[in-house]
Amino acid sequence: MQSQSISRTPFPASRKIYVNGVAMREITLTPTRLHGTKGAETPNPSVVVYDTSGPYTDPDIDIDVRKGLPRLRESWIKDRNDVEQLPAVSSAYGRERLADKKLDHLRFSYQHTPLRAKPGHNVSQLHYARKGIITPEMEYIAIRENQCVEKYFQENNDLWQQHKGHSFGANTPVKFITPEFVRQEIAAGRAIIPNNINHPESEPMIIGRNFLVKINANIGNSAVTSSIEEEVEKAVWACRWGADTIMDLSTGKHIHETREWIIRNSPVPIGTVPIYQALEKVNGKAEDLTWNIFRDTLIEQAEQGVDYFTIHAGVLLRYVPLTAKRTTGIVSRGGSIMAKWCLAHHRENFLYTHFEEICEIMKAYDVAFSLGDGLRPGSIADANDAAQFAELETLGELTKIAWKHDIQTMIEGPGHVPMHLIKANMDKQLEHCQEAPFYTLGPLTTDIAPGYDHITSAIGAAMIGWFGTAMLCYVTPKEHLGLPDKEDVRQGVITYKIAAHAADLAKGHPGAQHRDNALSKARFEFRWEDQFNLSLDPETARSYHDETLPAEGAKIAHFCSMCGPHFCSMKITQEVRDYAAANNIEESLALETGMTEQANVFKEQGGEVYL
Amino acid sequence: MQSQSISRTPFPASRKIYVNGVAMREITLTPTRLHGTKGAETPNPSVVVYDTSGPYTDPDIDIDVRKGLPRLRESWIKDRNDVEQLPAVSSAYGRERLADKKLDHLRFSYQHTPLRAKPGHNVSQLHYARKGIITPEMEYIAIRENQCVEKYFQENNDLWQQHKGHSFGANTPVKFITPEFVRQEIAAGRAIIPNNINHPESEPMIIGRNFLVKINANIGNSAVTSSIEEEVEKAVWACRWGADTIMDLSTGKHIHETREWIIRNSPVPIGTVPIYQALEKVNGKAEDLTWNIFRDTLIEQAEQGVDYFTIHAGVLLRYVPLTAKRTTGIVSRGGSIMAKWCLAHHRENFLYTHFEEICEIMKAYDVAFSLGDGLRPGSIADANDAAQFAELETLGELTKIAWKHDIQTMIEGPGHVPMHLIKANMDKQLEHCQEAPFYTLGPLTTDIAPGYDHITSAIGAAMIGWFGTAMLCYVTPKEHLGLPDKEDVRQGVITYKIAAHAADLAKGHPGAQHRDNALSKARFEFRWEDQFNLSLDPETARSYHDETLPAEGAKIAHFCSMCGPHFCSMKITQEVRDYAAANNIEESLALETGMTEQANVFKEQGGEVYL
Repeated sequence: MQSQSISRTPFPASRKIYVNGVAMREITLTPTRLHGTKGAETPNPSVVVYDTSGPYTDPDIDIDVRKGLPRLRESWIKDRNDVEQLPAVSSAYGRERLADKKLDHLRFSYQHTPLRAKPGHNVSQLHYARKGIITPEMEYIAIRENQCVEKYFQENNDLWQQHKGHSFGANTPVKFITPEFVRQEIAAGRAIIPNNINHPESEPMIIGRNFLVKINANIGNSAVTSSIEEEVEKAVWACRWGADTIMDLSTGKHIHETREWIIRNSPVPIGTVPIYQALEKVNGKAEDLTWNIFRDTLIEQAEQGVDYFTIHAGVLLRYVPLTAKRTTGIVSRGGSIMAKWCLAHHRENFLYTHFEEICEIMKAYDVAFSLGDGLRPGSIADANDAAQFAELETLGELTKIAWKHDIQTMIEGPGHVPMHLIKANMDKQLEHCQEAPFYTLGPLTTDIAPGYDHITSAIGAAMIGWFGTAMLCYVTPKEHLGLPDKEDVRQGVITYKIAAHAADLAKGHPGAQHRDNALSKARFEFRWEDQFNLSLDPETARSYHDETLPAEGAKIAHFCSMCGPHFCSMKITQEVRDYAAANNIEESLALETGMTEQANVFKEQGGEVYL
Repeated sequence: MQSQSISRTPFPASRKIYVNGVAMREITLTPTRLHGTKGAETPNPSVVVYDTSGPYTDPDIDIDVRKGLPRLRESWIKDRNDVEQLPAVSSAYGRERLADKKLDHLRFSYQHTPLRAKPGHNVSQLHYARKGIITPEMEYIAIRENQCVEKYFQENNDLWQQHKGHSFGANTPVKFITPEFVRQEIAAGRAIIPNNINHPESEPMIIGRNFLVKINANIGNSAVTSSIEEEVEKAVWACRWGADTIMDLSTGKHIHETREWIIRNSPVPIGTVPIYQALEKVNGKAEDLTWNIFRDTLIEQAEQGVDYFTIHAGVLLRYVPLTAKRTTGIVSRGGSIMAKWCLAHHRENFLYTHFEEICEIMKAYDVAFSLGDGLRPGSIADANDAAQFAELETLGELTKIAWKHDIQTMIEGPGHVPMHLIKANMDKQLEHCQEAPFYTLGPLTTDIAPGYDHITSAIGAAMIGWFGTAMLCYVTPKEHLGLPDKEDVRQGVITYKIAAHAADLAKGHPGAQHRDNALSKARFEFRWEDQFNLSLDPETARSYHDETLPAEGAKIAHFCSMCGPHFCSMKITQEVRDYAAANNIEESLALETGMTEQANVFKEQGGEVYL
């Protein structure tokens, strides 16, 4: 695999900056020229944005995907003196794959033997947080989450002093995220930092509702299409556009090798659904699954560096009949596998009965739980039904057990839910799962638009994000229809960045609006280049503009193709301001017409009318 | 212009049906074959959907765009004996254009002289409704809106009898729309039927929050691009995908002629912003606008058949200073024109001072008001500010005046609004405008995604539709960047059909979920063709599927490309059901494990478990 197949071009007018070692993207803006190209220039400050693209967009870093990314967190992990380097991988399957010469051409060449907690130790961030320890990961996150807030506070210094370290509820104006605040949120179980000690390449990030809303992108090969090379680039590509985590949902022949490539080259946490691979090991026959095969798979993946596991331990035998009258039965792959196993054996779900053993494994590597919603609704008709909510209560019970072991835990949510039933999902999740972070798939707000399910679900995702969901799992236009290609992945990621950002705005996350304001100012001032560069997808914005007005001159013209050169509302508004200023309109207006109540309020608020 | 440039292909597996003369689309489904192609077949009833595509999708109707569509409502209008056929067009401008030989090649060839109310008569549907008259338009609408409801009631006959004629609030389960209910809603001002007596080609439709949520698509030429031919096909194209009304926002040279072509060939109501054309007549100089020029434009357009006029009569002189400190000033074109006029003359908006004269014109043709929000916010930063809400109050005052003249009236709304500020818009509109229908543009929930503003706005549109907005003005991916092409129009319309339908579901509109349920059932049963055909955009759904699995055989296969042939959650669920049925699991489950509370509830509800 050659590195040149990986997307590395920096974003336009952007450069990678490091604030105390934390990577961010700085977008440089052009100056304001209010009266066209001849006017005097006023500089516009650059805008710093949260950056998930990793070292790939830093041209100063050499990257060789055969060697993997720099191991950013390795020294932090080792400095804690609670891990040991194993002489070899522990899982039987992992050893078998390594020994198989036929796989040599597929294998990631720079093998590291895995780390594991020393006997009697727990290396989870929750464990440290509860002991009052602020880790480098927490410090990194505080800086990372604060970038926009700092910008905001620089302009409001008194607020900075006043609100430093305060939490925020819905729509409170300001928050400053300190490392101690991060620790408290982790300790309370309200947030998680998925970062397996065997994935030191990842840049720490946090999932919790008192932080920026995050998004996940699913990738994965399957029996039908795709290759390892494509999957690595898909991961890089998804991070480039804004994916905060990646789930590798591969179901094909070389799951193990694909995963190694992805993890070694991923700057974001990786999640998996281990039961998928376990099922491959028993040739797809759910009833042949055993705890031992599953256990070995967990260890195999934990030692590769998977940061969170989806575990469908809430699909209990007694809940299965609750799905029988559904329109779309059980649509979760993991859920249907476990339901089939339960019925075949007339026994309780082995993920449930072995849950504490799973905890023992996960805390030795700091793998986080993503408790799967195997009974989520697959259609509007099945939303919020007894099966779904019965499972959610069980996930709450399991959260308590995970927390007893200091395992970081989040809860997966639906699915297909019409708008009026969305809030109940969030409310019940907070109640039953004691505020553990919620991680939802959409939800899709209607079933009638295959081909557009990124949109049907973005509506639900934005709403549930506002209500408190911490991470949104993306949906691509190919949902229900086929495997997403690169363009679908971009569409899905950008759509979910929109939903997450809309939620941040609605929650009143301080600084979230900074980028909107900068873009709107650029738009109003006809700074086309800045408008493109501040957007979530500069390439697409620019290409859409250029379809109608490709000439370079048009990008500094004070009109656009919507209205043409003689007629533009923004141009007219500027003329209104200029005209009024020249004629000292404000004074005369007040004298001639009398001010309305609204206008008086405006004046009382200290409105210095420059009109 | 040749008819072959117009899209006429019927939708797949669909045929046009006429229920008491009301056009609908019937989608035929394939039978269920539960155990693959060898199993016994169970037929699936066809699904009837609301159809805005007009005669174009009926292969039995000959259409010649040079002659225009059949004049469906002509006899209804004339039979009321309150209109007179004018000997010629009344507007000076209209006469001038007709006399201009240079325009002969552009002119629609089949000129009809206009109809107007006889002196002393008012031909608005609101006037009839208040007199207790149920018009054929109201009857048509009752049948049209009921199609899905009837379907629903056929399966619930007792509910039919019980709820016939009842209104519904949010989330009430059933409603049956009678012609009398339509009349009551019109009479109360809660709904409007935009249908100018000079646009008899249009199929009656209703805009009100106790009916299906509607969507509008904007089209229009401008000085920079486009042609008359393209604009007509754009209108047909937009209706094809689901636009309930079209706004012709042309700003170019041949506005008058373009409009004639569009109206004569449009099966849906047409709206315009007359101030745009008035501005063209004074060469783009807002300060040169006069009441006389505007008045002539209103008559010109009313006699062509425009069904609703956006009138920016709420942009008052004293509100203009309220926009001076905004991030994006005045972004409405109509709003900025009127603001400039007000300031230039130091006088009150002439649309406001001449409002009653406007009413006199509009009631002679049954043109409806769409009271424009000239001060709507153009950025998140400006949402819900004093300027916006001051104008809204004035629109409420104007609504009362319009209603005094029995003019049908709706109110335009924003714009750019973050999620947490959306509901206040709806609440204030209902309060200030006495429940007149709300017609909003989006709102966009963030500013940072140019290129994706169909999505940023679909989030807000779905929410405000749920809260009670009656019609949603679409936004295309090209918003803020350029003129939409055909594919952009399709993307915009489908995205807004999603938002409107999601709102219908959330409002509990009876029958809305019928299509979701049919599609989900098809999806669960691997009836791929039915899944495509029931979707809002069958072409796109099919092409996305075929990208991965193009073979015809794959469309009846019991797997899909997401998981491959050996692993599919829906397949497994079916196996769970089969296994359980064969082993009489339900009985044994209950005995062995004891039923949970939820399971008991399920049994008590009469759950006949076929698992």
